[in-house]
Amino acid sequence: MIILGPNRYGKAETRVVRVTRHGDVHHIKDLNVSTSLSGEMADVHLTGDNSAVLTTDAQKNTVFAFARKHGVGAVEDFALLLARHFVDSRPTIHRARVAIEEYAWERNAGSGHSFVRSGREVRTCVAHYDGSAAWMVCGLRDLVVLNTTNSEFWGFVKDEYTTLPETRDRILATAVEASWRHSAVSSADPDEDGAKNWDKSYESVRQALLTAFAGTYSLSLQQTLYAMGARVLADCPEICEVRLALPNRHHFLVDLAPFGLDNPDEVYLAADRPYGLIEGTVLRDDAPAAGPAWE
Amino acid sequence: MIILGPNRYGKAETRVVRVTRHGDVHHIKDLNVSTSLSGEMADVHLTGDNSAVLTTDAQKNTVFAFARKHGVGAVEDFALLLARHFVDSRPTIHRARVAIEEYAWERNAGSGHSFVRSGREVRTCVAHYDGSAAWMVCGLRDLVVLNTTNSEFWGFVKDEYTTLPETRDRILATAVEASWRHSAVSSADPDEDGAKNWDKSYESVRQALLTAFAGTYSLSLQQTLYAMGARVLADCPEICEVRLALPNRHHFLVDLAPFGLDNPDEVYLAADRPYGLIEGTVLRDDAPAAGPAWE
Amino acid sequence: MIILGPNRYGKAETRVVRVTRHGDVHHIKDLNVSTSLSGEMADVHLTGDNSAVLTTDAQKNTVFAFARKHGVGAVEDFALLLARHFVDSRPTIHRARVAIEEYAWERNAGSGHSFVRSGREVRTCVAHYDGSAAWMVCGLRDLVVLNTTNSEFWGFVKDEYTTLPETRDRILATAVEASWRHSAVSSADPDEDGAKNWDKSYESVRQALLTAFAGTYSLSLQQTLYAMGARVLADCPEICEVRLALPNRHHFLVDLAPFGLDNPDEVYLAADRPYGLIEGTVLRDDAPAAGPAWE
Amino acid sequence: MIILGPNRYGKAETRVVRVTRHGDVHHIKDLNVSTSLSGEMADVHLTGDNSAVLTTDAQKNTVFAFARKHGVGAVEDFALLLARHFVDSRPTIHRARVAIEEYAWERNAGSGHSFVRSGREVRTCVAHYDGSAAWMVCGLRDLVVLNTTNSEFWGFVKDEYTTLPETRDRILATAVEASWRHSAVSSADPDEDGAKNWDKSYESVRQALLTAFAGTYSLSLQQTLYAMGARVLADCPEICEVRLALPNRHHFLVDLAPFGLDNPDEVYLAADRPYGLIEGTVLRDDAPAAGPAWE
Repeated sequence: MIILGPNRYGKAETRVVRVTRHGDVHHIKDLNVSTSLSGEMADVHLTGDNSAVLTTDAQKNTVFAFARKHGVGAVEDFALLLARHFVDSRPTIHRARVAIEEYAWERNAGSGHSFVRSGREVRTCVAHYDGSAAWMVCGLRDLVVLNTTNSEFWGFVKDEYTTLPETRDRILATAVEASWRHSAVSSADPDEDGAKNWDKSYESVRQALLTAFAGTYSLSLQQTLYAMGARVLADCPEICEVRLALPNRHHFLVDLAPFGLDNPDEVYLAADRPYGLIEGTVLRDDAPAAGPAWE
Repeated sequence: MIILGPNRYGKAETRVVRVTRHGDVHHIKDLNVSTSLSGEMADVHLTGDNSAVLTTDAQKNTVFAFARKHGVGAVEDFALLLARHFVDSRPTIHRARVAIEEYAWERNAGSGHSFVRSGREVRTCVAHYDGSAAWMVCGLRDLVVLNTTNSEFWGFVKDEYTTLPETRDRILATAVEASWRHSAVSSADPDEDGAKNWDKSYESVRQALLTAFAGTYSLSLQQTLYAMGARVLADCPEICEVRLALPNRHHFLVDLAPFGLDNPDEVYLAADRPYGLIEGTVLRDDAPAAGPAWE
Repeated sequence: MIILGPNRYGKAETRVVRVTRHGDVHHIKDLNVSTSLSGEMADVHLTGDNSAVLTTDAQKNTVFAFARKHGVGAVEDFALLLARHFVDSRPTIHRARVAIEEYAWERNAGSGHSFVRSGREVRTCVAHYDGSAAWMVCGLRDLVVLNTTNSEFWGFVKDEYTTLPETRDRILATAVEASWRHSAVSSADPDEDGAKNWDKSYESVRQALLTAFAGTYSLSLQQTLYAMGARVLADCPEICEVRLALPNRHHFLVDLAPFGLDNPDEVYLAADRPYGLIEGTVLRDDAPAAGPAWE
Repeated sequence: MIILGPNRYGKAETRVVRVTRHGDVHHIKDLNVSTSLSGEMADVHLTGDNSAVLTTDAQKNTVFAFARKHGVGAVEDFALLLARHFVDSRPTIHRARVAIEEYAWERNAGSGHSFVRSGREVRTCVAHYDGSAAWMVCGLRDLVVLNTTNSEFWGFVKDEYTTLPETRDRILATAVEASWRHSAVSSADPDEDGAKNWDKSYESVRQALLTAFAGTYSLSLQQTLYAMGARVLADCPEICEVRLALPNRHHFLVDLAPFGLDNPDEVYLAADRPYGLIEGTVLRDDAPAAGPAWE
């Protein structure tokens, strides 16, 4: 027999910009919000009966309306607020997932109203809520980092298809994609969550990632990955699990011998594809069960 | 205590083109191959000891060498061949994941050696192998379809943020991303798998998706999604589960009244963002356990 | 003294989909329209006086309204219609440029109302009109072609930085970007232009490009480029000039000798960057002056 | 008769990373270099005779070799060095165009060897050299700026397709793409050019663009464009011409009235397409002839 399995639906990539004006000094928050709901959705799939469906259009409207009513502070708070609203206000909706990307801006030349989009990484969060519990995974992507030294790679398996020479010094470069799970998110009281300092936590994690990348004398990108995750957990007690995906952006030392030149670790070709891809999880042994946090 | 969790590593996006020449009539296969391995990788993460690591460079070399030695038939066979090789030949590698994208080409003007890249969807597969069992998920992406009629949307929840009018006729458009799991993949005998007709299976699934999209009188995109998945299962006994992600590419009927014009379902604005996103699974109630198939 | 130089403004990338319904058999045109106007625009630049400015919003509205009023046949006709309208109806607008991209669709399974987006190349046109004369450049992009043989490359300059070996057989692959100028475009009478068979002309040019690519025994991509342009001019008397930009998508024969394997022109690495880029113009010696056609 | 028109060929997007090591303090330059040559190229087009062709592969090799031999200071100097080399060393090459993109990096946490890619705009330059004269156009792209106030738009033409309401306060946002031509580039003496402070000039132009964007009370984006160009010319005597392309990234104030909410310039939808596109040139009335500078 053919049956319906897991499903969800929502509005993806609602681009909302929220301006707050304090006299001549303005602030902006620039977000990309995606909401997904699930619940009593058998009928809509099987017969097209939409009576349990809160439209994706209404989800989008809610994002805009809440940005006006509640303002936008930390994206994590905004995500939880939306997730709770959808589940708590609609009996047919049993679970909500709200994912937000935030783009950073800096002030232009000290102006109160002029901004330049920062090239910093994109900050992300994914909140889940099921009517009783909430989960929060924060993250970032496109944090591109490079070490010009302190990276070796040797001692690996040599099978019949291995031609890579060992190296005692290479460039190590990657575009960090990281997600980290918070141990506990109060579901009862939004104000309590609001008391969490999400922004401070984000900056701590980001700093831990950067510091570990810079400070690790690396014998493999896996070792660096683990060091980065472990450093986050060591520095940030509120985090119980870190997941990292690190593309190894190969920088090949160019052979200049045909031109009568040496190349003492100076000139590199930055390659696109193929690339290594190192993925791993670092967590506390007593991390609470993840539930739907990573879905 | 901080511990290492699930991890894998490999070479992503090796772009291999394989030409087969039968006199003046040539054939090409154009692939993007990504391999990921996991196994006894604690040491490399914790101390940088690479003695269990088959380099991603060797993985890439293997892809090229196998393309020469074994040729490339159906991508599923090639993926299984690679996955089995990595696990069976290296004691420290316990599981392999091989993902392949294939780009289609057509003959240029009847020529034996000239080709035009087809704009058809991208065909995908993901094979897993753990030393005893194998799993296969096939799929496609970027199959963009549109119905100009036979789509309604009404009877949905009206909450305080709902402004969408009901409609009895709208454009329904989406870019199909589909993955489907095969019930059984022989792990003992590659030749037996070779006897599977992966290409024929792929064409059957593709046709089922297109036929169901065209033929379903739709009251919601969820209903269409379910119909597409169910049709695949009905037509293809070798498939036990289908997962679909259907972005609802909104086409808004333009209000031309300000210009003294009616718009009897003729002129639409094709919008980019936000978009609806409908995700769902359709499966057999007796589908075998998925194991790592979807990872 | 600081002065204002050439300038133009408009609405870019208006995505309009036009459906025509003949009973149960529907037709769609899927366009991306960009309009640019210029004229008496000194004041708006120097003082912000907008009295000569037809808003880009109105330009967009015009695109939609004209799609309703006039329908959309060949994109060239639609582009000329819009260009003429902007200039002829507004005394402050002296020149219009209308660029259109068209995306092709095919019928889904013989259905009257269900379509699949074709992966064919994107068809383009750029129309200019200045109140008395009109110009038309048609084109295409993303036409990806590949020859598995009949391509050599040797006899080139060997300077101190040349290491490339000569070859008597290589893969030749490119993504054709082509534009071609029509000799004459009637500006007086839209209906007369309508009598031009733009669609037929497009298919002739496309076929000439494909045929020349397939049929040219190539000693260099430049030779192929010239053959493609010359073939268009030979086959299509209405065209007076062809411009081509051909990225040389390198396919490197993989050295499999380290693995004890030969590679008799079978296994290639498809590289991304860097790539060769060959650009050239082929034209009739008596081609009329181009005027603003290429701007 | 069919003839060959303007043409050029070269190697596009050579990604070279140059590391300079002063003890433990390292410096990196991250470039994307594209070279194009033209000259006695009739034979290669007409007959495939490559005897005048310096291969694109050799061009790429030259980029790497020169990065080693000469180092990489300002990208403008590196571009001129390459352009002069190709023309002066090969009798069949009469003109060279070298375009470079530079990606900025910042130090990671004060480390001497660890870097984070900055999200700043991409810096660009295009050098031309014809054996006697040289030309230099510098530029930037992806400089995304936004003003939350001090932008009005009213007093424009109202034709039958105009529905846009006038506004006395709106968000003004754009992604600046700017190019500016230097008045004079010494062709005789590379060292003299080296004495130019390209880096300082770049920072001055960038600052002028940002300051003018922030400081202009705008009645139209055209006015802002002109102010930006004029400011560059006023602040930077070495520049004679500025070209700007400013997409108007519309931020629509969301109508929240259906939800019983006002929206006092707080919540906006950031739209993708269509977008306004304002293009213009600001120059000195005594700017020298541009020659091939903009090609």
